[in-house]
Amino acid sequence: MGKNLTKRSEDYSKWYNELVVKADLAENSGVRGCMVIKPYGFAIWEKMQAGLDKMFKETGHENAYFPLFIPKSYLSKEASHVEGFAKECAVVTHYRLKNAEDGSGIIVDPEAKLEEELVVRPTSETIIWDTYRKWIQSYRDLPLLINQWANVVRWEMRTRLFLRTAEFLWQEGHTAHATEKEAIDEAELMMNVYADFAENHMAVPVIKGTKTASERFAGALDTYCIEALMQDGKALQAGTSHFLGQNFAKAFDVKFANKEGKQDYVWATSWGVSTRLMGALVMTHSDDNGLVLPPKLAPIQVVIVPIYKGMEQLDAISEKVNPLVKQLRAKGISVKFDNRDTHKPGFKFNEYELKGVPIRLAIGQRDIENGTYEVARRDTLQKESISADAIIEKIEFLLEDIQANIYKKALDFRSEHITQVDSYAEFKEVLENKGGFISAHWDGTEATEERIKNETKATIRCIPMDVKIENGACMVTGRPSDKRVLFAKAY
Amino acid sequence: MGKNLTKRSEDYSKWYNELVVKADLAENSGVRGCMVIKPYGFAIWEKMQAGLDKMFKETGHENAYFPLFIPKSYLSKEASHVEGFAKECAVVTHYRLKNAEDGSGIIVDPEAKLEEELVVRPTSETIIWDTYRKWIQSYRDLPLLINQWANVVRWEMRTRLFLRTAEFLWQEGHTAHATEKEAIDEAELMMNVYADFAENHMAVPVIKGTKTASERFAGALDTYCIEALMQDGKALQAGTSHFLGQNFAKAFDVKFANKEGKQDYVWATSWGVSTRLMGALVMTHSDDNGLVLPPKLAPIQVVIVPIYKGMEQLDAISEKVNPLVKQLRAKGISVKFDNRDTHKPGFKFNEYELKGVPIRLAIGQRDIENGTYEVARRDTLQKESISADAIIEKIEFLLEDIQANIYKKALDFRSEHITQVDSYAEFKEVLENKGGFISAHWDGTEATEERIKNETKATIRCIPMDVKIENGACMVTGRPSDKRVLFAKAY
Ligand SMILES: [Zn+2]
Ligand SMILES: [Zn+2]
Repeated sequence: MGKNLTKRSEDYSKWYNELVVKADLAENSGVRGCMVIKPYGFAIWEKMQAGLDKMFKETGHENAYFPLFIPKSYLSKEASHVEGFAKECAVVTHYRLKNAEDGSGIIVDPEAKLEEELVVRPTSETIIWDTYRKWIQSYRDLPLLINQWANVVRWEMRTRLFLRTAEFLWQEGHTAHATEKEAIDEAELMMNVYADFAENHMAVPVIKGTKTASERFAGALDTYCIEALMQDGKALQAGTSHFLGQNFAKAFDVKFANKEGKQDYVWATSWGVSTRLMGALVMTHSDDNGLVLPPKLAPIQVVIVPIYKGMEQLDAISEKVNPLVKQLRAKGISVKFDNRDTHKPGFKFNEYELKGVPIRLAIGQRDIENGTYEVARRDTLQKESISADAIIEKIEFLLEDIQANIYKKALDFRSEHITQVDSYAEFKEVLENKGGFISAHWDGTEATEERIKNETKATIRCIPMDVKIENGACMVTGRPSDKRVLFAKAY
Repeated sequence: MGKNLTKRSEDYSKWYNELVVKADLAENSGVRGCMVIKPYGFAIWEKMQAGLDKMFKETGHENAYFPLFIPKSYLSKEASHVEGFAKECAVVTHYRLKNAEDGSGIIVDPEAKLEEELVVRPTSETIIWDTYRKWIQSYRDLPLLINQWANVVRWEMRTRLFLRTAEFLWQEGHTAHATEKEAIDEAELMMNVYADFAENHMAVPVIKGTKTASERFAGALDTYCIEALMQDGKALQAGTSHFLGQNFAKAFDVKFANKEGKQDYVWATSWGVSTRLMGALVMTHSDDNGLVLPPKLAPIQVVIVPIYKGMEQLDAISEKVNPLVKQLRAKGISVKFDNRDTHKPGFKFNEYELKGVPIRLAIGQRDIENGTYEVARRDTLQKESISADAIIEKIEFLLEDIQANIYKKALDFRSEHITQVDSYAEFKEVLENKGGFISAHWDGTEATEERIKNETKATIRCIPMDVKIENGACMVTGRPSDKRVLFAKAY
């Protein structure tokens, strides 16, 4: 198609890296591991944000904003938390630059050293719970349901655009509750909100479940997650929601008076999704021609390309197209009429295919005469001629149909790629030759989990919420197991 | 009013600090100079963001996101720029923490020192222009009209909530143009967009003008600004828009081929407003009873307080109120029915007055019988009884009327506080006893500007866009001057 895009079958990883850059989603910056999110990519992220934010508000959450910097001592207060993040922290040690006295240039002023170093937030539990201590005195102050949209930094050594970057954008919810049950319900609720968003906005089917102890968030008693499956058979963790127990309340001394006037520690959750969702979106639907975007997240849902010779023909086309553009916009459909005369139609077709615009209309001299548009849908690449009278209805139908179709396609792919195995040999064989999720019995020990990971690179993605209790034997050790868990190689 | 708020006439500065905290807008955090923006304050900021973002998009701008970190060498590339920001930079020097070998706790790992230090962005010209070099080759790539919503850090020694904080939220527009004129037009356009937003959304009248050389942004050839006047007679710079010439293009080698195929450096602008606008909003309209919010930015536009004894009366009230809430929401009006039984009506009245809710409805047994609501407007504190049949119309009228009234009030105050003076003695007298803007002749030299600043703390806020050319003499030196400029003490 003239896009010089590596084919997925040749090198999936290379295809992804090229596509993210060529489709103008993001690129690497001059700062190691930090990406630039380009306008087209950011427009998709904005639609994700808007959709999620609405769902958060509908479930009673409010937004707030907490400091970027976390004093080192705060991070250290919850033992397993600092253990989890210490190895990848960007640390601010000084607050001034100055001209070197030898004239060699700008240097860090050694006299402007901070008394206590500040960590650039890798996540905000500690600074937020330090604040909650001031906000929570009584059961009347609970529940506290707060979300923050923010940038965070984790100093990863090997980075990939959207999937793993030193700085990324995300939202982090942090809630406080009077009872354990209420906190667990909240953690589950937000996992369900994430699943709803992934499936109904992103058209990405996900499996809901809980993590094993070794895969939990640093400081959590339980981690709920949604796991998606990419076209190369690898899993991607698309969102997590943590039940934090009273760990952070104890670390930051956040107590409340209950209805009986008794003091108790507050129960906590935190939950987040990040720009990693962009990676999941790209890798779930896109093809060798470029992005395939779900209509609900596409910055441009409909593009109209005129095919003409000379201004007279263009004028005739514009006369038809301009009112259509207006009518579509009035219906809340985002539409672009690309009447640039600097590029040929073929170039434009390629560009919008690469960028995943769900519907493309083309209109030329013949269409004007026949009162038609040529309509192409991005997901199937099918084209048909549609009467101008029926075009709006057709577009409305297609926007829904494409959304549903790419979801179904992804769901079918995933269904074909959940394999039940009963022996470790079979497990390795499926992992090697087919990929996807593997449903197997496991003896519940970290030792076995670790062994499988070391020998095969597969991890337990989750214990599905809808898991069936059944008698079985661990595929590795033969020890008894009462449920199957889902393994996969993962991003 | 039981709010224990210091009166403005007693101590304006204290009044402001107390109000920001008591009205739940923001508070200081455990991190020096960094604030927590609380949910109610953030809800106002979100409305500001939404309003501005819409205006940016309507003027052709797109959002993107660039790295938080700026390599020290980037910042150093534009000489006057680094000069302006070096003294207040948070510097990341290490990327890992570890357990101290002597068991004393968590320390910065000395082996994880960055080769090149990273500055937490105080503003993003340098990292963005380093990126634009890759994006701009030809006049076809121009103009490039990009905005970013982000957090930035400037290590201020003396901070105040919203007005001056080490970390703040803002938007920064960065545009690239083929011609000088186009860049200047853009810088002016964005000043006008800011003025439109300040006046028509925030109800804050502003004066548009340009800065003198000494007050310009570090790296700009010209800085356009909007200046507002607070109730204590001090000015507040509410937004700036910079014409950057070719400074950053030259520093980062960003050239383009023009239509004739000749290489030239690109012309630049940048422009920003920040959470400082929250300070301007509070200080322009609020009174000794608390916040006064313009309806266009109020998170809650209408609050309804039931006055009742017992559940039966509350039920009767709810039967009237619930359909009204629904009707108001259908009209896009944000309304809260505060039926909490944990607080008395008087407490609620105080709370919503403190929080600046524009319209308060109260409904009790008598109102039910009479088919009325008691309607109170926050700006004038006037109350009246309105028939339930006319209540929606009344609310719609009041939302517009309050928006217009607080703007007019602020405008009248400002008009009364622009004083024309012709001698330095008079200047000092007005500055001391009346405050506000002072319109005076100035000889155009930095020396005189500096002298006035040192002697009176007043600075030149701007040379107004609508300045009249007239013959005059500098109030200090007597040297010739062809226009008056606006002085004031400022935040
Ligand atoms: Zn397969
Ligand atoms: Zn006065």
